[in-house]
Amino acid sequence: MNKNDGFTSIFALGGLGEVGKNMYVIEYKNELVIIDAGVMFPTNDLLGVDYVIQDVTYLKQNEKKIKALIITHGHEDHIGGISFLLQNVNIPVVYASRIAQDLINKKLIDRNIGYKDINTYNEETIIKFKNIQVDFIRTTHSIPDSYAIVVTTPNGKIIHTGDFKFDLTPIGPMADIHKMARLGEEGVKLLLSESTNALSPGFSASEACVDEALGDVFARATTNRIILATFASNIYRIKHIIETCRENNRKIITFGRSMENAKDIAIKNGLIKDPSIFIDTNQAKDLKKHEICILCTGSQGERLAALSRIANGVHKQVQLMPDDIIVFASNPIPGNSSSINRIINKLYLKGVKVYTNSQFPDIHTSGHAKAEELKWMMRLIKPEYLMPIHGEYRMLKEHADLAVSCGIKEDNIFICKNGDSLIMDNDGVRRGKSITAGDVYVDGLRVGDIGSVVIKDRKIMSNDGVLVTILNINLDKRQLMIRPNITTRGFVLVNENASLIKEIENKVSDIVNKSLKSSKYSVTDIKNQVILELNVFINERTGRRPMILPVIMEVKK
Amino acid sequence: MNKNDGFTSIFALGGLGEVGKNMYVIEYKNELVIIDAGVMFPTNDLLGVDYVIQDVTYLKQNEKKIKALIITHGHEDHIGGISFLLQNVNIPVVYASRIAQDLINKKLIDRNIGYKDINTYNEETIIKFKNIQVDFIRTTHSIPDSYAIVVTTPNGKIIHTGDFKFDLTPIGPMADIHKMARLGEEGVKLLLSESTNALSPGFSASEACVDEALGDVFARATTNRIILATFASNIYRIKHIIETCRENNRKIITFGRSMENAKDIAIKNGLIKDPSIFIDTNQAKDLKKHEICILCTGSQGERLAALSRIANGVHKQVQLMPDDIIVFASNPIPGNSSSINRIINKLYLKGVKVYTNSQFPDIHTSGHAKAEELKWMMRLIKPEYLMPIHGEYRMLKEHADLAVSCGIKEDNIFICKNGDSLIMDNDGVRRGKSITAGDVYVDGLRVGDIGSVVIKDRKIMSNDGVLVTILNINLDKRQLMIRPNITTRGFVLVNENASLIKEIENKVSDIVNKSLKSSKYSVTDIKNQVILELNVFINERTGRRPMILPVIMEVKK
Repeated sequence: MNKNDGFTSIFALGGLGEVGKNMYVIEYKNELVIIDAGVMFPTNDLLGVDYVIQDVTYLKQNEKKIKALIITHGHEDHIGGISFLLQNVNIPVVYASRIAQDLINKKLIDRNIGYKDINTYNEETIIKFKNIQVDFIRTTHSIPDSYAIVVTTPNGKIIHTGDFKFDLTPIGPMADIHKMARLGEEGVKLLLSESTNALSPGFSASEACVDEALGDVFARATTNRIILATFASNIYRIKHIIETCRENNRKIITFGRSMENAKDIAIKNGLIKDPSIFIDTNQAKDLKKHEICILCTGSQGERLAALSRIANGVHKQVQLMPDDIIVFASNPIPGNSSSINRIINKLYLKGVKVYTNSQFPDIHTSGHAKAEELKWMMRLIKPEYLMPIHGEYRMLKEHADLAVSCGIKEDNIFICKNGDSLIMDNDGVRRGKSITAGDVYVDGLRVGDIGSVVIKDRKIMSNDGVLVTILNINLDKRQLMIRPNITTRGFVLVNENASLIKEIENKVSDIVNKSLKSSKYSVTDIKNQVILELNVFINERTGRRPMILPVIMEVKK
Repeated sequence: MNKNDGFTSIFALGGLGEVGKNMYVIEYKNELVIIDAGVMFPTNDLLGVDYVIQDVTYLKQNEKKIKALIITHGHEDHIGGISFLLQNVNIPVVYASRIAQDLINKKLIDRNIGYKDINTYNEETIIKFKNIQVDFIRTTHSIPDSYAIVVTTPNGKIIHTGDFKFDLTPIGPMADIHKMARLGEEGVKLLLSESTNALSPGFSASEACVDEALGDVFARATTNRIILATFASNIYRIKHIIETCRENNRKIITFGRSMENAKDIAIKNGLIKDPSIFIDTNQAKDLKKHEICILCTGSQGERLAALSRIANGVHKQVQLMPDDIIVFASNPIPGNSSSINRIINKLYLKGVKVYTNSQFPDIHTSGHAKAEELKWMMRLIKPEYLMPIHGEYRMLKEHADLAVSCGIKEDNIFICKNGDSLIMDNDGVRRGKSITAGDVYVDGLRVGDIGSVVIKDRKIMSNDGVLVTILNINLDKRQLMIRPNITTRGFVLVNENASLIKEIENKVSDIVNKSLKSSKYSVTDIKNQVILELNVFINERTGRRPMILPVIMEVKK
């Protein structure tokens, strides 16, 4: 083989050891392509953080090499970080499939970003750079127009599956299993395959099963209004629901910004043939209950979403009626079950019927390949090397074990972290050096201006509040000029604990006076002494550890 | 019937519309008995709260009527509030079953409460007050010595089931289904029956199934150490595990305070015949891996529990070895799945095998009756009236629906909230007036000194931090004496945002100077003006809304 061909680097800036913020990079000499730019929704312990995105230091440093950003499909964990990326790094062109492109454009308009270089691709598109070539394989997932990406390098072929499942009775077109088989026969060096459901044995149910389950629910509701909550991102599910409504002569009212958005994009792309099925609340007044379906956001118990407002009785346009039927066409995402249960209890209290996937298991199916489907992908593609992607460590590990059972050599499977690189040359694939990777927090309008210190402070205040004490000190005279003033929030009910606050004020006076007696104490020392001693005192008296903030006002003679 | 018999009131101070803090009251004339005094663990939104307990205003006001506190069994949601209750209200005597008594005594010693009047009861005990009589029915649950309580009043019999399941192949003694049947034939007026699993169809699996599943896991681990995490409160499960270890010639090391506690109580009560199976880490040095089982707390992902420390590699006595097998003999409690997943990922990273009930469904079974068992209870007891207890509203409602299907008249079923009372006289049962009930928060050492305002402040600070600004104002001269000083925590990284902080300082100066120009502004007005305008300014610049705390220092001429 010709060693002059150089080598290809493959690494993730997000998506490994986590579910979300997907971003993979493939680089050959002076050409670099990025696959996906997603966000991750923060875990409960990241107080106040809205999104987590990638540290793109490497891309910034290698900006000139970047040829394109390529998007596998239109879900937030694959496109949600684009607006941040485009504001930080010069990306010459973005390639996205039809639906993904519409969703990205909506996002850029909302954020006032005037980026115009988004091209559409489909299964026939071939993108040629000098050394690298990119083309696409149609897959099935819970959103239309999802693709696996084939990157042909001088060192061999790499396939990145994106998110996929094998649905043999899909709502949209079949996955192009023949192209997968053909590529497999021709030879694929490295497969990057998603791992989200690697821990689930068997096959995922087809969306056709959901169709049947929905049909059952609608058949029971002969005289009732149906209120249906699902993921707005699951555009195929929405298509189902619309078809089921049409068969059952129901008109649809949509609520929730992302649901309206999904509806518009589905109509624009011809997924919904006759938009006259959608009506507004005024038009609904003339209809009977069994002629109406309300389709809304909030299936994860989100406090501000339409379903939550309906359950709380504060939705402006929808009041619950006792014979309403509420359907959750969704699964609880880990971490959301308490919020969902809270809403279900509220709905029960209103006397309505609630159907979830615990009574109707087929009312939701995952969009991600389970263990047997992951095996199908590996058997079709027959890669020499495998890098499991998209998932927490245990999912990647389980995927690796599945790969061994499908005959991929253990040494040829790489479980990586974000920033770990693989080097692919004509001989094979091996581990390379590490690249800067990490989490960047977005809170409000600002990106990356909070770190673990800020979050740790928020944690302390979320548990026990804050206590500010103002110390007017004349350092020349070494004297406390005014009795210390205490202000607290989130610590105790101040009005009902006046004596405790007084005790704390006295304690602060004592600490400061003691410190002032010794000339060795500076302002900083006094501050630290107050924090130290007051912390112990307050903890002994209350069992709490509020954030203590002494503010020293130096008074000159 | 003789109307002179008066009436009996029945109500809950905790346990209805929620899972936890159980406390039920039965009152006839001057006699009042309390059933259970549990805690509830706070939901995620109750920031910093350690426990939630009952508002016992009613008991305080009717202290003289109180005859006894009767405990159904030794779980935290039934006994965890006893120490708070005993410190607040004069309770002449507590009756508890054997294991429950030991657990209560441990709790009182830990909290330095010298209460001595705890009596043991068993299935033969009859407690007679002047008008009311109390006796007991043995049930099966996940802890030994659990009982239903029979309260015989002049108006008829009331049965309170406590927590129960029907386990026909139990580890301990059978439930006394014959006494239930006998009482049912004799006539029971009102049944208070638990509803925790009312939403789960079918029957719960017997603990004997867990025994088999454990056997399977142990059989696979021929050369491996086993680390097993389970609920310390599930003393029957612990008994299982010990027996399985004995059969497999493994010695046991326990870790975690509540696990040690459970072990001691189980030994003391003869549930563990030969305590020599327990060894310490020193003795374990001489044993082979397959001769050791580590039994520990932390099956819910609790950060400070033994399993968490083992997974994090910070446990002083246990280092993970690559061929260890970790078993979760438990179910995730809603709200805990993220923490559990975090630990499972860490364990996978260490390369050990992890078995949970997703691979071995029978490795855990619930201690609570499912729908068919609830029907058995209603069919055996044949109550005229039913009050579903122990559960969120949807569980109570589902239990009520089950009751209708078992022939209890819909009008005879009462779904109540805490504080709703039922009146039982010789004619029947009807709704009575409401009694004060509510949530009291325990945070640290102090009970009830925080309320929703404090928690709301903690929520604000947990999201966006706090910003303190000191304003030295001479009100006579209407002058700002010193440039405002800003201190923040949990807002932004201060060192990296000096210019933003400067902008905020300038803005505060502007607001204060503007206010001072108008003589109509008082100190409070200036404070409010700063909060109002600064909130808008900061939100426009950062998208955040920190807690703003202006502190005004009045400087006299």
